[in-house]
Amino acid sequence: MINITLPDGAVRQYEKGSTALDVAKSISEGLARKVLAATINGQVWDASRPINEDASLKLLTWSDADGKNTFWHSSAHLMAEAVESLFPGVKFWVGPPVDNGFYYDMDLGDKKITEEDLRTLEKKMNELAKKNNSFIRQEISKPEAIQYFYKKGDEYKLDLLSGLHDGEITLYTQGNFTDLCRGPHIPATGLIKAIKLTNIAGAYWKGDEKNKMLTRVYGVTFPSQKELDEHLQMLEEAKKRDHRKLGKELGIYTMDDDVGQGLIMWMPNGTVVIEELEKLAKETESAAGYKRVVTPHIAKESMYITSGPLPYYADSMYPPMELEGEKYYLKSMNCPHHHKIYAAEPKSYRDLPYRIAEYGTVYRYEQSGELFGLMRVRCLHMNDAHIYCTKEQFNDEFRAVNDMYLKYFKIFGIDKYVMRLSLHSKEKLGIKYVNEPELWVETEEMVRNVLKESNIPFVEVQDEAAFYGPKIDVQIYSVIGREFTLATNQVDFSQGRSFKLKYTRQDNTEDTPLIIHRAPLGTHERFIGFLLEQYAGKFPLWLAPVQVKVLPISDKFLDYAKTVSQKLKKADIRAEVDDRNEKIGKKIRDTELLKVPYMLVVGEKEMNEDKVAVRKQGKGDAGVKSLDEFLSDVVAEIKDRRSE
Amino acid sequence: MINITLPDGAVRQYEKGSTALDVAKSISEGLARKVLAATINGQVWDASRPINEDASLKLLTWSDADGKNTFWHSSAHLMAEAVESLFPGVKFWVGPPVDNGFYYDMDLGDKKITEEDLRTLEKKMNELAKKNNSFIRQEISKPEAIQYFYKKGDEYKLDLLSGLHDGEITLYTQGNFTDLCRGPHIPATGLIKAIKLTNIAGAYWKGDEKNKMLTRVYGVTFPSQKELDEHLQMLEEAKKRDHRKLGKELGIYTMDDDVGQGLIMWMPNGTVVIEELEKLAKETESAAGYKRVVTPHIAKESMYITSGPLPYYADSMYPPMELEGEKYYLKSMNCPHHHKIYAAEPKSYRDLPYRIAEYGTVYRYEQSGELFGLMRVRCLHMNDAHIYCTKEQFNDEFRAVNDMYLKYFKIFGIDKYVMRLSLHSKEKLGIKYVNEPELWVETEEMVRNVLKESNIPFVEVQDEAAFYGPKIDVQIYSVIGREFTLATNQVDFSQGRSFKLKYTRQDNTEDTPLIIHRAPLGTHERFIGFLLEQYAGKFPLWLAPVQVKVLPISDKFLDYAKTVSQKLKKADIRAEVDDRNEKIGKKIRDTELLKVPYMLVVGEKEMNEDKVAVRKQGKGDAGVKSLDEFLSDVVAEIKDRRSE
Repeated sequence: MINITLPDGAVRQYEKGSTALDVAKSISEGLARKVLAATINGQVWDASRPINEDASLKLLTWSDADGKNTFWHSSAHLMAEAVESLFPGVKFWVGPPVDNGFYYDMDLGDKKITEEDLRTLEKKMNELAKKNNSFIRQEISKPEAIQYFYKKGDEYKLDLLSGLHDGEITLYTQGNFTDLCRGPHIPATGLIKAIKLTNIAGAYWKGDEKNKMLTRVYGVTFPSQKELDEHLQMLEEAKKRDHRKLGKELGIYTMDDDVGQGLIMWMPNGTVVIEELEKLAKETESAAGYKRVVTPHIAKESMYITSGPLPYYADSMYPPMELEGEKYYLKSMNCPHHHKIYAAEPKSYRDLPYRIAEYGTVYRYEQSGELFGLMRVRCLHMNDAHIYCTKEQFNDEFRAVNDMYLKYFKIFGIDKYVMRLSLHSKEKLGIKYVNEPELWVETEEMVRNVLKESNIPFVEVQDEAAFYGPKIDVQIYSVIGREFTLATNQVDFSQGRSFKLKYTRQDNTEDTPLIIHRAPLGTHERFIGFLLEQYAGKFPLWLAPVQVKVLPISDKFLDYAKTVSQKLKKADIRAEVDDRNEKIGKKIRDTELLKVPYMLVVGEKEMNEDKVAVRKQGKGDAGVKSLDEFLSDVVAEIKDRRSE
Repeated sequence: MINITLPDGAVRQYEKGSTALDVAKSISEGLARKVLAATINGQVWDASRPINEDASLKLLTWSDADGKNTFWHSSAHLMAEAVESLFPGVKFWVGPPVDNGFYYDMDLGDKKITEEDLRTLEKKMNELAKKNNSFIRQEISKPEAIQYFYKKGDEYKLDLLSGLHDGEITLYTQGNFTDLCRGPHIPATGLIKAIKLTNIAGAYWKGDEKNKMLTRVYGVTFPSQKELDEHLQMLEEAKKRDHRKLGKELGIYTMDDDVGQGLIMWMPNGTVVIEELEKLAKETESAAGYKRVVTPHIAKESMYITSGPLPYYADSMYPPMELEGEKYYLKSMNCPHHHKIYAAEPKSYRDLPYRIAEYGTVYRYEQSGELFGLMRVRCLHMNDAHIYCTKEQFNDEFRAVNDMYLKYFKIFGIDKYVMRLSLHSKEKLGIKYVNEPELWVETEEMVRNVLKESNIPFVEVQDEAAFYGPKIDVQIYSVIGREFTLATNQVDFSQGRSFKLKYTRQDNTEDTPLIIHRAPLGTHERFIGFLLEQYAGKFPLWLAPVQVKVLPISDKFLDYAKTVSQKLKKADIRAEVDDRNEKIGKKIRDTELLKVPYMLVVGEKEMNEDKVAVRKQGKGDAGVKSLDEFLSDVVAEIKDRRSE
């Protein structure tokens, strides 16, 4: 018998050679039907692989990232089986799971695969899935494996084998298809209920353009048709909400070859959004006792050697500028400049917590192939701040930071979010983590407690902390369910020491402050990209580049339209007049396209009675109001930063 | 007889060989007594030098920059005469006029000059000045000159002579002193009525540290004792108002070796001033129809080749960063990025004037020796904007820019200012200036007219325009009379074409817009440096980092003090409580030092009656007021951005 420890700490006994599926069945048949894989002592395994020793076990289903990955990896094998049955002689390279599905790279000889082929393949895959063939794992020696693929004439798998050693080589077979594969896989093909092959692309073998171009087929699969339908609908919606498309249509941002890749230029409409976000941040931070600073975008090499990124992360920075025998770098973070401001004047306990904020612009080198719209860029405007505090002040300060996140989530209608608390690993103290065992335990416990107190959903991840303290990655989900990494919060024992930051305690002794790094609104680039998707470009009134458009029915009412617009502008409302000589219908349609929240149609009646006929974006006629009533309504809507 | 044309166009006849002094005397003896030099056909001449041909003539007095320079140059000679009489054997290198006075570099052998020597020299100079010796000009051949200085054993002047040619060598003699000198000089030493030698420094011969160190003596002189007294008083006052001293005391800015020279870090108090200035600029620009943009701080080499600074001004930029085979530069100007934003969307006449503004941060390389506090830095936050307009719109647009300057001058109490209008030179069309003779004349006339219409004091300078159009340099003077270069306005025919900027006219043809470059508030760095001097650190309420400090008479009234402060903060007033356990006298003294505009002293009586005892910075007790009354007073004072 072996002892199996479950995630809740319960220990159960099973026959030696039992599988994760056996364990699941012993709990409930319903659960067993959902099991895709398992982690055994922290490693992902086939749910059908015999366990021969005491182990801790966690069952993985569709709701676990590793469960999904296994499912999609097996789906790649299923696709390969279908491809081989339809196009005999095909040779396969690799077929991994990716963010939203899987792909397989294949050599189809002269055959060019078409969209029609994809539909045929889907049918074949469905047929093979229904057979519910098991995925069978087989350990094999290197010579046997070489013999097998040599016979098959498969030079690609032979190439893969050349890098593997005896004892780490396995084959996986389902139905008539056998592949060299590390695994793990789902128990059987029948779990795959819904299939969509999404895309055909070319991919150089090993990513090297000197090599042969292989065919890459992408797909996505689900355990039910309902989930596939929802996914396809989400993709459809995401396409409409594509921040690159909306960013161009709405005049939010532009890029230019002479400026450089990944360097966003914010157009007037985008700058309005930036300024409203900064206004929100400044108000919020000012009320929370932050002061503001402004620092340059460059510093000498010595600064980044002290703070850490050099020489280790030189690759993610722009290369240096050499001047008067010194190397200057574009800053990739604001922290060191802020530490210097902390250090510029002596501090006592009376000055702490010292909170300094800056919408700092940092530069990071991302490979050109990685750049993507506003999501992956090389210049980032960061909602940055650093809080220098005593250990006793930490709890309140960190709690306040979390509250700030929640306040923002509410304003932007972010209902779904999760915080990933990354912890240290005892074994790696002094190597990967600063060697302060007690401080680690203490701080992690402090952070955990605050997260619990704040009722914030969070998951804990071992061995992923920063060098100098635990960190929290904040993931948010847009209304259509797409995940965005918003920001990272860090607690820092270490930089205070590297920069020799001090404060005088009440008893006149000196101590080093703790530092909290935080950026609740992330970067303008990523956050505005998120907001474009979140709102489908229909910014709420307070964020809208143009808030009100006044549409005179004809030129006869242009003067009145201008009077209305002037009055709105005086109340700091971003108003414009559509003074084109166009029919009112066209004016309305064009303004709808620009996603302006309010249209005021004005004609004879409105002019004579000092009124406006209000239309709301996407909702049509909202009745006739006196100008004063409309004005006080929108002023209130803006002041409260209402979403609706 | 020769014809002399005076600045007002009048032509008078004089005997051949008459001097500028003769001309002055023929107008009035009083005028002649003030004449220091003259410009003859645009060249500065001795007032006592015979004129042998028809010429245009302008008399130069103390109020002309060239008059002052001549006066100080002659004062350097007077000092040299005094030095030679006291320290025979001294050898002289060069002795030019500078911004505020003059210096002479000299080789005194082993003699170290002392402060006491300066006083003795001043006495000697006064004595020599009273002799009223004429400055006598003598043209001399190169061999004669060599012989003269060879006899004198003066290797320095012989070195100077080696670079000169026959026909351009002159000696000037006053009293017992003769110098190799291009001139010109004032008529006689008696004009120098007040003398102050200010400073002794070392200076390597020819600025090369491998050469001998010479002694440099600085001095300043005036045509009357009153002017010298005023000057010394101004220097004394300037010392108290030194922006570097105040910048540190008031927590405005800091610098750090690890960041780099000339790179300002703005501390919390300085950032308040920055944000208030930006708020003012944004309000003003928004009301004037500007839109805002945000652009990155780098761009590729190709951008700066198109816009002009590369390769010609590479020395004034930071060196490039080489990435993926491309050179990236820190931007030294915002224009090209703005042009790219203009070009990002097609424009028609309906979109013009298109005005885009950005407090853009630019980087310029200044030699370390040139760096000076906030005045000469390497990172500048510029109140930048570009106006793209048609030729027909130019007048109104340029007029509006001037009005904006005047509006700002009023807000900041700048009573004295002057604009230098730099014009092209016909001869250099196609070489130094874009070859558009008609556009030049037309635009210069447009600019001149607007300046006249706006009643702005301006001077015209020939042959100093930018390549692509006339420019205006704006000089302002602080309350203590020091001159600051604030900003440059430029009118630009050329960059629109280089960047292929277009707009569609009403008749569907395409045209290139005119561009106005403007920055009325200059850079944060220089402007805040100016404001520190202008206000002696006592910022007006709206700009003050801390606006109100509440001082409880004892801890008993701390809660009331906090209530008062909270109420002020709610009204967006920057208020703080002095919660230290100190005597009220000390609290008041310390707050005065921080130059906080208002102090509210609160004790028993104030607490019971919901009142505050108001003290105004530098003015003491301002009476007891109800908190509400005080609040509404300061809100109004801030809103109006009052200076007093």
